[in-house]
Amino acid sequence: MTIKLYCMGESGNAYKAALALELGGLDWEPVFVDFFGGETRSEEFRKINVMGEVPVMVDGEETFTQSGVMQMYVTEMTGKFGGETPAEQREVMRWMLWDNHKLSSQAGMTRFLMNFLPEEKRPAEVIGFMQGRLKAAYKTLDAHLEGRDWIVGNAITNADIACCGYLFYPEPFGFDRKDWPNIDRWLSNIEATPGWKHPYDLMPGSPADRA
Amino acid sequence: MTIKLYCMGESGNAYKAALALELGGLDWEPVFVDFFGGETRSEEFRKINVMGEVPVMVDGEETFTQSGVMQMYVTEMTGKFGGETPAEQREVMRWMLWDNHKLSSQAGMTRFLMNFLPEEKRPAEVIGFMQGRLKAAYKTLDAHLEGRDWIVGNAITNADIACCGYLFYPEPFGFDRKDWPNIDRWLSNIEATPGWKHPYDLMPGSPADRA
Repeated sequence: MTIKLYCMGESGNAYKAALALELGGLDWEPVFVDFFGGETRSEEFRKINVMGEVPVMVDGEETFTQSGVMQMYVTEMTGKFGGETPAEQREVMRWMLWDNHKLSSQAGMTRFLMNFLPEEKRPAEVIGFMQGRLKAAYKTLDAHLEGRDWIVGNAITNADIACCGYLFYPEPFGFDRKDWPNIDRWLSNIEATPGWKHPYDLMPGSPADRA
Repeated sequence: MTIKLYCMGESGNAYKAALALELGGLDWEPVFVDFFGGETRSEEFRKINVMGEVPVMVDGEETFTQSGVMQMYVTEMTGKFGGETPAEQREVMRWMLWDNHKLSSQAGMTRFLMNFLPEEKRPAEVIGFMQGRLKAAYKTLDAHLEGRDWIVGNAITNADIACCGYLFYPEPFGFDRKDWPNIDRWLSNIEATPGWKHPYDLMPGSPADRA
């Protein structure tokens, strides 16, 4: 049965699940969620996901939320991206948790505030503060990637798929890969992975649709 | 060998690891980290953890960072707190990831800004914004706990241990458990768990030491 991923192109968290499904070679299809029309805030959507968030993944009778859970499910189904040894598995989980805590959570919010809120509603102090927090996160990731092609081990894992979630988007949020040579090289490695696609090519919905 | 947890009482993320170790019945001891004296920002500490964060856990030759990884390690060692079935295991992971993304990350930062920064440096707009985000998170958790004693299944799991990380602290950050009846009842269930301890009783270091 085809796995359905409820998502939209603008969501870096949805991208993590979509990219894992795609690179994992699973049979899946995106189902467009009208986030900007308020769909995730509806009562109906809350019944599917009390967290009121995309992505939501449905495989037959099972429904999943949280992109990290979906990534782990792809690993369960395919044996890919989870790390080779118990130590690597823990290291993958470490960077997925760090990403949820310090990178994607803050990047996603800052990008939203800077691009998807009406200009007069953008909170300048919050944006400046978050950009400072994000800079610390880029610094941590860039330092870790010194001398490494991948975050963990010698191949792409869920750690890479999580941490890159927001880093391919063109909308400004205070990140320029040219400022971070190790991150830049690592993103190129991800882009060179057979089957890789940009979020706006992998999922329906992009700012261009609303222009 | 005694597991060492590098931590301080003020860290709700360290508390998650300490509480899991304690309730799991493992042989562990806290090692005080002088966060407020700048220890986690030192070069020496970065060598142990590139993320520059507490907690850090050391078990013999192995070093762990990210509280979620430590919680999963306690589960590996004891069989406790991980959920009973594969579906419960995924549900536990879902709430741990949500906590990292939406609850503890934002609660920890807001509490820091409101209590541990000098008064003249506290960014009012950021604090107000984060309190709004946190209110949405409390609402989600409270709705999920309606009619439930625990976040997943019929006993305490890593989901509870993660989500309660910052919720027992007395310092103000815009959370009052009396405002959220289901959260309040659930926190009482955690407090009633044999072996439960408050963060300031489980780990060294508290604001009282610096008063």
